[in-house]
Amino acid sequence: MKPLQIADKTFTSRLFTGTGKFRDIATMQAAVEASGSELVTVALTRVATQGDVDERLTALEASEINLLPNTSGVRDAKEAIFAAQLAREALGTNWIKLEIHPDPKYLLPDPVETLKATEALVKEGFVVMPYIQADPVLCKRLEAVGAQCVMPLGAPIGSNKGLRTQDFLEIIIEQSNVPVIVDAGIGAPSHASWAMELGADAVLVNTAIAVSPDPVTMAKAFEMAVQCGRMAYESGLASTHPHASASSPFTSFLTE
Amino acid sequence: MKPLQIADKTFTSRLFTGTGKFRDIATMQAAVEASGSELVTVALTRVATQGDVDERLTALEASEINLLPNTSGVRDAKEAIFAAQLAREALGTNWIKLEIHPDPKYLLPDPVETLKATEALVKEGFVVMPYIQADPVLCKRLEAVGAQCVMPLGAPIGSNKGLRTQDFLEIIIEQSNVPVIVDAGIGAPSHASWAMELGADAVLVNTAIAVSPDPVTMAKAFEMAVQCGRMAYESGLASTHPHASASSPFTSFLTE
Amino acid sequence: MKPLQIADKTFTSRLFTGTGKFRDIATMQAAVEASGSELVTVALTRVATQGDVDERLTALEASEINLLPNTSGVRDAKEAIFAAQLAREALGTNWIKLEIHPDPKYLLPDPVETLKATEALVKEGFVVMPYIQADPVLCKRLEAVGAQCVMPLGAPIGSNKGLRTQDFLEIIIEQSNVPVIVDAGIGAPSHASWAMELGADAVLVNTAIAVSPDPVTMAKAFEMAVQCGRMAYESGLASTHPHASASSPFTSFLTE
Amino acid sequence: MKPLQIADKTFTSRLFTGTGKFRDIATMQAAVEASGSELVTVALTRVATQGDVDERLTALEASEINLLPNTSGVRDAKEAIFAAQLAREALGTNWIKLEIHPDPKYLLPDPVETLKATEALVKEGFVVMPYIQADPVLCKRLEAVGAQCVMPLGAPIGSNKGLRTQDFLEIIIEQSNVPVIVDAGIGAPSHASWAMELGADAVLVNTAIAVSPDPVTMAKAFEMAVQCGRMAYESGLASTHPHASASSPFTSFLTE
Repeated sequence: MKPLQIADKTFTSRLFTGTGKFRDIATMQAAVEASGSELVTVALTRVATQGDVDERLTALEASEINLLPNTSGVRDAKEAIFAAQLAREALGTNWIKLEIHPDPKYLLPDPVETLKATEALVKEGFVVMPYIQADPVLCKRLEAVGAQCVMPLGAPIGSNKGLRTQDFLEIIIEQSNVPVIVDAGIGAPSHASWAMELGADAVLVNTAIAVSPDPVTMAKAFEMAVQCGRMAYESGLASTHPHASASSPFTSFLTE
Repeated sequence: MKPLQIADKTFTSRLFTGTGKFRDIATMQAAVEASGSELVTVALTRVATQGDVDERLTALEASEINLLPNTSGVRDAKEAIFAAQLAREALGTNWIKLEIHPDPKYLLPDPVETLKATEALVKEGFVVMPYIQADPVLCKRLEAVGAQCVMPLGAPIGSNKGLRTQDFLEIIIEQSNVPVIVDAGIGAPSHASWAMELGADAVLVNTAIAVSPDPVTMAKAFEMAVQCGRMAYESGLASTHPHASASSPFTSFLTE
Repeated sequence: MKPLQIADKTFTSRLFTGTGKFRDIATMQAAVEASGSELVTVALTRVATQGDVDERLTALEASEINLLPNTSGVRDAKEAIFAAQLAREALGTNWIKLEIHPDPKYLLPDPVETLKATEALVKEGFVVMPYIQADPVLCKRLEAVGAQCVMPLGAPIGSNKGLRTQDFLEIIIEQSNVPVIVDAGIGAPSHASWAMELGADAVLVNTAIAVSPDPVTMAKAFEMAVQCGRMAYESGLASTHPHASASSPFTSFLTE
Repeated sequence: MKPLQIADKTFTSRLFTGTGKFRDIATMQAAVEASGSELVTVALTRVATQGDVDERLTALEASEINLLPNTSGVRDAKEAIFAAQLAREALGTNWIKLEIHPDPKYLLPDPVETLKATEALVKEGFVVMPYIQADPVLCKRLEAVGAQCVMPLGAPIGSNKGLRTQDFLEIIIEQSNVPVIVDAGIGAPSHASWAMELGADAVLVNTAIAVSPDPVTMAKAFEMAVQCGRMAYESGLASTHPHASASSPFTSFLTE
């Protein structure tokens, strides 16, 4: 498989994961390792509110894994910019996963504030990875102001419904000049393969791994799913056919 | 992963494949090997009409792979029984994949003739693997007359549409006391994972591998897809949620 | 709209309905009337077990509506044939809706017993309307033994999921020489329109009307849905497009 | 059915339609009349570029139908505002359907420019009806700046794929305090019913009517579809069930 380039980093793994919702830190650490992920989100609020780097971070920092602070919890561009600055200071990284969701129920992203914050943060030297609706026009605008990738959702966050936005993801993938990373909605390995088969550059999976009864096995399963989906994409998949055709040669030899 | 038992054989791999539609024998042999499959279908007509075991078979017989003759091309129970007997003689195996499809356009299976032929072949000592519609009642009847597994279709053969019959596959899997192997419709690794996540015991994939521009890579991709789907099933998958929930802890710390 | 012919009867309405699950007889009577249906199923067990024609029947017999006894509750061909004979005697009709479902949980139909009973009942002069899986091969066999129509299911009975079997319904409709009536799974007017748009000849809806808080309005809604779906089918529907096109003329006049 | 209120107007019909793509003006006029629609879009470019009210408008103005100029063809807020002003002058209406789509291939809407233009036009006294992605957060922001309704798309414009955005439409409908009108993607009457069953306040259908071989019948079919979908919504629809239940009483009377 081809490696993935975002900004100045090259990734062998196309599975990004997160640190939230695990039952304990040892499980989180083992699952992240099993996933093979080289980029792992961490809610910056864990850093900022505790005034110190917590155990979670210590556990990951020992490894080669890149931390990706996210702005989860902010409600507009101003809060997001402040949060990104805090994260840069606390974690020493200029990468930021931008999540701006004013509605606490569905946590859906705000397109207008996300564009505004992306533009400002890029100017401050951040590598911005914005979480957004599967909105092809917004993706092009984010690209235009310097987003290093786009992170459209597959389905409402936490719904595990897969790629309900497939029609729009296909357009985004067709038009994008930056990597497309499907975020939210991926609840099973088959969803991750599906995203990769469509041509997504990577997927981000957190909940489905963290809340599994066996997060380590599930992390490994997602790693394989991302790989096989990508292999299929690079090899070339068959299209769907409205009419059937036989997979075995049809013959009437026995009746002649 | 747990091994799969069918009749007297134990399979480590839960991916079954076929020998049809490859561009040449070397590619077929390499793809089958890459798939890790331990059970590979071969159209008995290739054997019967040529009076001798052809190159294709020679290529596979050298390996540890089990050949599974299929009756593709027959139109009723009588023809199927005759075809199975020919296959047993030619290939020295009492395993038979039963495919009875009177309609040459869609190659959909005949439920009545399939039940009749299964009953007769079981009495003659065959291990019968019947290809059928995703019909839960038919599955129970096939089981009752001694079918060693059931092979419901996911979508019209060759359509690559995935698991259009999901609602019925779920009922079949819930009710079956013999292995359930999803056959037909699987056009991408994500479809194979999906079947395994539902609890299918195995999948059969031929066309999607054989017609790929790179069948060896695709075979490997399907092997991984089956494995990760099974791992997810055994680990326990999250259910889908009508309402979203956050994958990162929500906080309002910045605005207080 | 073209009228629908089944056996010797001509129907103006393409919505068939039932008498079960209503909260009282007056509501049932009003809803059936509002539906415009000319063919209404009644569980023959209501007749047979009570030794007399009950109120329900009296209510309907006064009208022009044709009663269609069903064999719901029987488990094999033998029971079905007996049930049909009882129904003919009790209700004075040789029309029978054949439902054979050995499994009390999902009430899915048995293809083998249904074919056997259809053949026998046709020989005894019945107009047989068999409820079946959306199995194209079975449909052709039922037609061959004299079924006057086929009644494939859209989704598991009572699931209200719509046309989960669409791929197979399309093949059935393409191949059938007798009317195709979609039965089971239709939970909303949009599902009924959808079936008609695919080219189904009629739909049978019972639960979705009977259990509605307002069965009379819902019956009327289904009547309209069937009509508009049929009108669209007869007028010719647009196909789906993978790529978008504008519905308004695109112009750059303002920017020139 | 309850009437629909938008700004100062009350609508009996919940089907809005358009004037584009018809083969001739007489057909357009007849179809619009058959649809029962009381609000009909017209591309303002037809007005503006011809310097005079064309035949199309004359045909409609004689009737009671309200014309709704759209800004189709504009690429940003500035162009849209200018277009709306032109339309107000030419047609004497302060209603405007706001469509801003910078990409000529898919004609998908720009969320940022749409919000900006809405805010400006509301201040100028326009009744603004914005065409947007099915983006729940954007809908709330449009409502906050004074949009009189929101018009989320069901699928890419002209694709006829139905409500691919259902998950997000449900959230929009749940949260909105202004009417929700589904626009784009509706290719069949069943799609229109489906939107209404979800609780949409109205639908806009143009292409599917205009390009039908029989636009007048199709217009009537859509009118009925919208009505029956709304009736079902107001009456209360059954939910979908993962497990089946019988629609006829199950009995074992015959076998006892």
